[in-house]
Amino acid sequence: MALVVIGGVAAGMSAAARARRIDPKLEIVVLEKGPVISYGACGLPYLVEGRVREARELIAYTPEKFSKDRNVDVRTGTRVIAISHPRRELVLDSGARLGYEKLILATGARGGKARIAGADLPHVFSLHTLEDGERMRRFVRERKPKHAVVIGAGYIGVEVADALRRNGLKVTILERSEYALLREDAAFTKEVRAQLEKHGVELRTGIAVSAIEAAQVAGVPCDMVVVSAGFQPNVELAAEAGIQLGRTGAIRTDERMETNLRGVFAAGDCAECTHLVTGRPTWIPLGTTANKMGRVAGACAAGARERFPGIVGTSIVGIFGMGFATTGLSVAEARAEGFTPVAARIEALSRPRYYQGARTVVELIADRATGRLIGGSVTGEDGAAGRINTIAAALTARMKIDEFEQLDLAYSPPFSPVWDPLLIAAQQLRKEV
Amino acid sequence: MALVVIGGVAAGMSAAARARRIDPKLEIVVLEKGPVISYGACGLPYLVEGRVREARELIAYTPEKFSKDRNVDVRTGTRVIAISHPRRELVLDSGARLGYEKLILATGARGGKARIAGADLPHVFSLHTLEDGERMRRFVRERKPKHAVVIGAGYIGVEVADALRRNGLKVTILERSEYALLREDAAFTKEVRAQLEKHGVELRTGIAVSAIEAAQVAGVPCDMVVVSAGFQPNVELAAEAGIQLGRTGAIRTDERMETNLRGVFAAGDCAECTHLVTGRPTWIPLGTTANKMGRVAGACAAGARERFPGIVGTSIVGIFGMGFATTGLSVAEARAEGFTPVAARIEALSRPRYYQGARTVVELIADRATGRLIGGSVTGEDGAAGRINTIAAALTARMKIDEFEQLDLAYSPPFSPVWDPLLIAAQQLRKEV
Repeated sequence: MALVVIGGVAAGMSAAARARRIDPKLEIVVLEKGPVISYGACGLPYLVEGRVREARELIAYTPEKFSKDRNVDVRTGTRVIAISHPRRELVLDSGARLGYEKLILATGARGGKARIAGADLPHVFSLHTLEDGERMRRFVRERKPKHAVVIGAGYIGVEVADALRRNGLKVTILERSEYALLREDAAFTKEVRAQLEKHGVELRTGIAVSAIEAAQVAGVPCDMVVVSAGFQPNVELAAEAGIQLGRTGAIRTDERMETNLRGVFAAGDCAECTHLVTGRPTWIPLGTTANKMGRVAGACAAGARERFPGIVGTSIVGIFGMGFATTGLSVAEARAEGFTPVAARIEALSRPRYYQGARTVVELIADRATGRLIGGSVTGEDGAAGRINTIAAALTARMKIDEFEQLDLAYSPPFSPVWDPLLIAAQQLRKEV
Repeated sequence: MALVVIGGVAAGMSAAARARRIDPKLEIVVLEKGPVISYGACGLPYLVEGRVREARELIAYTPEKFSKDRNVDVRTGTRVIAISHPRRELVLDSGARLGYEKLILATGARGGKARIAGADLPHVFSLHTLEDGERMRRFVRERKPKHAVVIGAGYIGVEVADALRRNGLKVTILERSEYALLREDAAFTKEVRAQLEKHGVELRTGIAVSAIEAAQVAGVPCDMVVVSAGFQPNVELAAEAGIQLGRTGAIRTDERMETNLRGVFAAGDCAECTHLVTGRPTWIPLGTTANKMGRVAGACAAGARERFPGIVGTSIVGIFGMGFATTGLSVAEARAEGFTPVAARIEALSRPRYYQGARTVVELIADRATGRLIGGSVTGEDGAAGRINTIAAALTARMKIDEFEQLDLAYSPPFSPVWDPLLIAAQQLRKEV
């Protein structure tokens, strides 16, 4: 009897590694449908850019090494086509059957390429797997396309646009919504657009693409297309096995990452988790969350008692050297969740003027009724990651704005001005609450 | 009747500005003994280095501009020699008397130069005022000293050593204690020492200096000496007026920054405040704390009700491009405060290897009895400030290690590895608790 993990990338490999650490004797099998495991999918845009020179730099473990170091049976090229939970058995695409005692679903997510007509044309790409990245890199190097259209202004879409632009292509991003980076925030989108345009990338919002043609998409001439939109969790296998999905469409779990079927866990991009600001389930597929979920699922499947409390929705994207970071809810999102948000957005320097400070934009959002911080965003060339993480810690702690305003943040001219931009934003916000 | 502020640098000017904002009609007088106000004393090492080319770049406001913009009577070159609280009257060095209704003491701190024999020799410097900075810069440029001894390995001492070394001097730091940067932490001191030595600065600890000679200090030959040790709060004026000092030797106040004399407030380097980890009074003179205290003192003196809860003891220093940051208590300090500390110190990369991550050292310290985080340190070429601020927010929120371990921190290859060094340290620490 064994623990079987379906999926060998972020969540799956974290789960397998953690389960092994908890129980040195447990039989563990990882089934991965692709040819490689344990790769840093978030590094793919930098492979396209050329900063990462070889795909293998993105691979943390080969199946052989992981198998040997961790004593885990890793089977690549193995697809699961059905789960029979009453029989505790998986059906593989080879027709073989594999029994399990505990099961972890780490089946990930996929893009919306399949739903766009013409997406199978040879100049159309997506960027999920190492093979996708290598294929795109090869196309850029060998075919020297001139004008790329990127469909979707989410994290990967914007990162790919940056990478292609650095390779000399003209790049146009087409985004269905009015917003970039999945943040319902017009001012933040304006900052993103300004940075993209400054570096020669056009962002067109409110453009729904239903078809790709040989030489144009939605009227934009192009000889290369990247589809980075329409992401959805891979839940079909789970749903057919009677595993409950949540209102987000991803697999529902408890804090131990266990699904409604006892002994069956889910982790990573196929699963939802709790948003700690709203207290409700959310689906925000990101590598760091996938790894955390995987770790907890692996621990619990191996018999430990751990919990994954949830996320506050933190993210950051680098666009031509500038960080664009968000956490918690935007004003619009907060309103939709039933808060009465009040916000302050300020511009300040990241360091003193005499120490070459650069423009930083900080927005903080609080709930008027309670004064509790519920969201924020930070944009800037330096310090954006650290500043958003400070807000993320405050959100997790349910900190109020008057407490946040007095935070004892590190000050020294090479790192920050005497009033950190976070504190300036907090002072401004407290006036509004 | 008026609000009088004694001291026109960080705390004093923050107080005056804030009081004006609270009460547009209040009569406000600022008395500053020196010739300039409102300068960034923390920028002085960068003036010595030459990165800041002119002293005036460090001045936020001239007396004229502040007086005009804020309608505040700013008097430079004015020293207060006595406070008669029963008469609500100050005695100035000119012999004149000045009445007050509310008084804010922002008299700052001073170094220990006066207590070292030979400290009045012409090649001996300290670095508190703009004049000090200009004088040191001039000496370095014109006299071209070859070998400097810096007495004291605190923040300013180490920053001055960096600045002088960048000007080509051989530099030796002599520190009385066994520790650098005021942190009772041998491993942290080892990191500081390694970075200094890598750049040609020698750090000798356990060396008490009582005298400076013309060509040597404690056996180290030199033609320039900087005294950056023995700091103490300027409290004589307050003490003589019957204002209570705390156990730290600095002025004791309540959360509104009010002293034991009603209507008399104290703020900045002359005052103590609460350490939020220990709950006890502490004296950690830093510019950012001074400004925060000043703001609250100014608001309360002008009739508002605000409070300054305290600090967690966060600091950061840049040494040859690397950040050395601490917050809360070290293991030794925690033990002395009655905690049973348990710590984990890890080395990790600041970003993925494929994105040129640099070595980062993180230590996290928790109280074994409660699991509560009580301190941390971060060393690294990038992200040290943001990471220490994230810990500082957690300390302020009295977060426990298992909650910190699950923090939703921003992840993207240009900014962090998928497991941020903070989370790796937290995972390690949780095993120990």
